[in-house]
Amino acid sequence: MKKLWLTAGIILGVVIVVWLAGLAATPSPLPQGPIAFDSPEGRALLFRSTANADYFLLAEHFVTQEHLTYCGPASMVMVLNGLGVPAPETPEFGEYRYFTQDNLFERADVREVADPEAVSKNGMFLREVGAVLEQYGVNVTVHHADEISVDEFRRLASENLARKGDFIIVNYLRTAVGQVGGGHFSPIAAYDRESDRFLVLDVSRYKYPPAWISTEDLFLAMDTVDSDAGELRGFISAAFRPEG
Amino acid sequence: MKKLWLTAGIILGVVIVVWLAGLAATPSPLPQGPIAFDSPEGRALLFRSTANADYFLLAEHFVTQEHLTYCGPASMVMVLNGLGVPAPETPEFGEYRYFTQDNLFERADVREVADPEAVSKNGMFLREVGAVLEQYGVNVTVHHADEISVDEFRRLASENLARKGDFIIVNYLRTAVGQVGGGHFSPIAAYDRESDRFLVLDVSRYKYPPAWISTEDLFLAMDTVDSDAGELRGFISAAFRPEG
Ligand SMILES: [Ca+2]
Ligand SMILES: [Ca+2]
Ligand SMILES: [Ca+2]
Ligand SMILES: [Ca+2]
Repeated sequence: MKKLWLTAGIILGVVIVVWLAGLAATPSPLPQGPIAFDSPEGRALLFRSTANADYFLLAEHFVTQEHLTYCGPASMVMVLNGLGVPAPETPEFGEYRYFTQDNLFERADVREVADPEAVSKNGMFLREVGAVLEQYGVNVTVHHADEISVDEFRRLASENLARKGDFIIVNYLRTAVGQVGGGHFSPIAAYDRESDRFLVLDVSRYKYPPAWISTEDLFLAMDTVDSDAGELRGFISAAFRPEG
Repeated sequence: MKKLWLTAGIILGVVIVVWLAGLAATPSPLPQGPIAFDSPEGRALLFRSTANADYFLLAEHFVTQEHLTYCGPASMVMVLNGLGVPAPETPEFGEYRYFTQDNLFERADVREVADPEAVSKNGMFLREVGAVLEQYGVNVTVHHADEISVDEFRRLASENLARKGDFIIVNYLRTAVGQVGGGHFSPIAAYDRESDRFLVLDVSRYKYPPAWISTEDLFLAMDTVDSDAGELRGFISAAFRPEG
């Protein structure tokens, strides 16, 4: 009989602690629209995010696009450096090599796929970004938004962000996520399941901070027509496995 | 009597849960020397760090020094953008303004304090970095390592990193923290009390990842002579309070 009461007490104690911990962990409601990285909510999302394996290397190599049209090259430079793809020479860094938005287009075979002068004028479209990455030996999958559902995007992207060795670049229309501007590229770095948001490391760092954007909003913003390309926007997954 | 056993059971249940949680939270021992940002240990340190208020804005504006000698300018650009100091015009970004390692030296009064050509050849020393920041209206305190103890550094720096609105740039000798190179500047972004380490956002991103360095090692590396300056290295705290 004593044993029974002791057991009941132990169970009750455990229940009380778990319940209190649950109370403490209940999040307050999040605002609509993008949540800035350096806001109380944005900080909490990084710390609790369920898929942030890609965050660290992307943060290490986070850059600002060098011109208004250079969001594609800036995103590629982050991913190429993050993947550890062998970089061109960079005399400004002595013996060290590193991808920059300048040396990205140094190789003739890369310039055949995307001409840096044209990129300076008109930017890039999704397929071109994929083609440039492929020139560097990256395994690329280009996903146009009409070839995939929002649920497939959420699954593919959140699985990718939880796994090292591959990265995702999104191509979306800014106005569709409540921002000023047109078509844009940036890598995504983390996913928070509870709020169903992705962290976009926005390469227009002079303009917008990194932001947590809802899966729904991000997908709708990818599901828009890039009139230069005559195709829908979407996203790219990029992996690198050096040949043995 | 039943009540007594129930109470005992509740207490025992609580103790069991707290003990199990403690077991789960016990960290494994950390390696000697710098801990890379994107290692299992480095990731855990960010998430558990007790002073990381400065991390987010510095990560947002993290840059690579543009030349081998430009660690000072790169560190200043991160801090100026992080502080929200009014930036020079940047035509490459349209209507937006942003500090870059190029426009930092555009103003004549800044070039009087530090000549960019000389910086390209020889880099900068601690007092010069402070003087350039002051030209932009930043409130600067320069701490040479011989004017302060390791305990004062730990206290000042960890308090600063826990507080928004001001930042710290350290000036240290790389070899003294087990790295290749000479004198170096970089901002620090977070502090972990348990391991007594600071996160250095190393601006030589082509060379070293961000790293968690022990307070002792970092202080000894600041407590070295900069022969160009004829003074000890140290650190700078920088705040900005726009005039009302
Ligand atoms: Ca350039
Ligand atoms: Ca990944
Ligand atoms: Ca430059
Ligand atoms: Ca601070």
